[in-house]
Amino acid sequence: MTPGEEIRLSIDGMGGDEGPEMVLPGLAVALVRCPNLKFDVFGDEATLVRRLADLPEVKAVTTVHPTTVSIPMDAKPSQALRMGRRDSSMWRALDAVKSGTSQACVSAGNTGALMAMAKFCLRPMPGVERPALAAIWPTVRGECIVLDVGATIGVETKSIVSNAVLGAAMARAVFGIPSPTVGLLNIGVEEVKGLEEVREAGQILRERNATDMRYTGFVEGDDIGRGLVDVVVTEGFSGNIALKTAEGTARQLAEYLRMSIGRTLRSRIGYLLMKPAFARLRDKMDPRKINGAVFLGLNGLTIKSHGGTDAEGFASAVELAHDMVRHGLLTQIRRDVATLKDEPELADAR
Amino acid sequence: MTPGEEIRLSIDGMGGDEGPEMVLPGLAVALVRCPNLKFDVFGDEATLVRRLADLPEVKAVTTVHPTTVSIPMDAKPSQALRMGRRDSSMWRALDAVKSGTSQACVSAGNTGALMAMAKFCLRPMPGVERPALAAIWPTVRGECIVLDVGATIGVETKSIVSNAVLGAAMARAVFGIPSPTVGLLNIGVEEVKGLEEVREAGQILRERNATDMRYTGFVEGDDIGRGLVDVVVTEGFSGNIALKTAEGTARQLAEYLRMSIGRTLRSRIGYLLMKPAFARLRDKMDPRKINGAVFLGLNGLTIKSHGGTDAEGFASAVELAHDMVRHGLLTQIRRDVATLKDEPELADAR
Repeated sequence: MTPGEEIRLSIDGMGGDEGPEMVLPGLAVALVRCPNLKFDVFGDEATLVRRLADLPEVKAVTTVHPTTVSIPMDAKPSQALRMGRRDSSMWRALDAVKSGTSQACVSAGNTGALMAMAKFCLRPMPGVERPALAAIWPTVRGECIVLDVGATIGVETKSIVSNAVLGAAMARAVFGIPSPTVGLLNIGVEEVKGLEEVREAGQILRERNATDMRYTGFVEGDDIGRGLVDVVVTEGFSGNIALKTAEGTARQLAEYLRMSIGRTLRSRIGYLLMKPAFARLRDKMDPRKINGAVFLGLNGLTIKSHGGTDAEGFASAVELAHDMVRHGLLTQIRRDVATLKDEPELADAR
Repeated sequence: MTPGEEIRLSIDGMGGDEGPEMVLPGLAVALVRCPNLKFDVFGDEATLVRRLADLPEVKAVTTVHPTTVSIPMDAKPSQALRMGRRDSSMWRALDAVKSGTSQACVSAGNTGALMAMAKFCLRPMPGVERPALAAIWPTVRGECIVLDVGATIGVETKSIVSNAVLGAAMARAVFGIPSPTVGLLNIGVEEVKGLEEVREAGQILRERNATDMRYTGFVEGDDIGRGLVDVVVTEGFSGNIALKTAEGTARQLAEYLRMSIGRTLRSRIGYLLMKPAFARLRDKMDPRKINGAVFLGLNGLTIKSHGGTDAEGFASAVELAHDMVRHGLLTQIRRDVATLKDEPELADAR
């Protein structure tokens, strides 16, 4: 795909704490940086049309598709499926990917509901039992991919191995590294430590000896930000907790920085001189800039934005969708997952 | 206990990546801030005596106890018990707590080995099945206690509930709050989410309705640094990953800050003016300042320092031991754990 070619995304217009009030301005921000985007927005027609009137540049590239059901942010996945299959803004946005009219779906709706619907609508690729949610994590050396960050509860050796394959495929597509390094998140680097499933997955990955990734062993929580590996694989519970904790720590330190600056005249003058440096730092520390996680292992691309984000944050998720499409992520993953099916070690693993 | 009263600590002189070369200078640093400390140091006599010759102020308050075995940093817990029971520096330091000659033990040795030995030597209090490792975590509002951060693998409802009680007791002792707020770390605030054991523990804590703590429900990773609750309870795997991830993120942001500053003459001048503010910030961000985690639920106090720390970090762990003794943590915990035994809900829980 050439950089300027049109990319069509389907958008869940009702997702997120603020719904269309956040989503549509988010599209406006994304459009400035990615002018080749076109949108199919699903949601309450009256609200969408009214809000689009103030955003002529978005309106010009958007088709509004009226829907009658919105999935509440606190709905259980089973509830969401019952109430929202076929008619909800979330489902219709996913269905546009399935039918091929859109190349990726973006939703700020509730994670569990989106996962359940995406799985039901797009179906896992053959060889993938559980799709995973992958986040792009800033490191001191650039970026790495961390998965699974929250779509699944409970660990299985098979899923950890398949997540390693999915993550490596994403790293190849997004970072352009032919053989990305992959580590398993654990509580210690010694082989004796950690959950049995993580240890077993490590064993399989080591013996797999694949050419399309380099498995480097266990990594610890503090190795993620260090950029020790291109892909960090973790089970969904602790992965989600790691992601949220890192975001919280970044916000906490930004707050410390703000408090340190405010105290004296001297440091306020210093601050004025350092303002451009701080702007760069703030940019790096802004959790909205890394908003957006990708569901991997489904027959279609779905990007999940934080529910509580603002327009700037939603725009990051939309741009991530744009980048994934441009890099041909789905093709890359499809090719790699095909190799998974034929591996005998995996058939025996739990 | 009055602030100036003598406090006697037993020190594993051989623990940590650098052993006595880091431990003894660490005692020197701690002694400056806590001049009422006395030490029993266990380890290789020749090395300890040689190193103490350069540290006369430490030598004056230290008794050296020769031991012949050091537990390697990569020993499995079972291995450590086999090779080190009775004769190792780690065991002897713990045993001094058991026999009452020391009021708390500090070791920078390997976590799993220390946990196994501490459990074997000091024994869990009646009503506690699994002791927990508790860390003091800096927040934007002060500090909170997070446990379990890595001593145990696998979750049990009972342990999560007992950790809530242990953590609340520590918060009362250390922060002086009569009824500390307690939250369970989970992947979402809605009651429907997360591991079954975490949900079940939440149910029990809610129904328990204790006066010595206020259970507030689930918290997420980003709520820790926000200081939302006084005590964050988590199972050992994701707790350890959260702790390490936060430390890594702090180091990462310090590195970003350093990179932002170095770029232009203007920002370098600004930096000089802001130096005192930065010194305060660095102080808050320094992971060594929060080094030291406490084993809770044993018949004796044990403080674990990072293995890879330096003298400054080890001193933090020693000062933490000092503070725990001074606040009468053990008495506080003993009283609270006694209430746990009589609760019928816990007998039925897994």
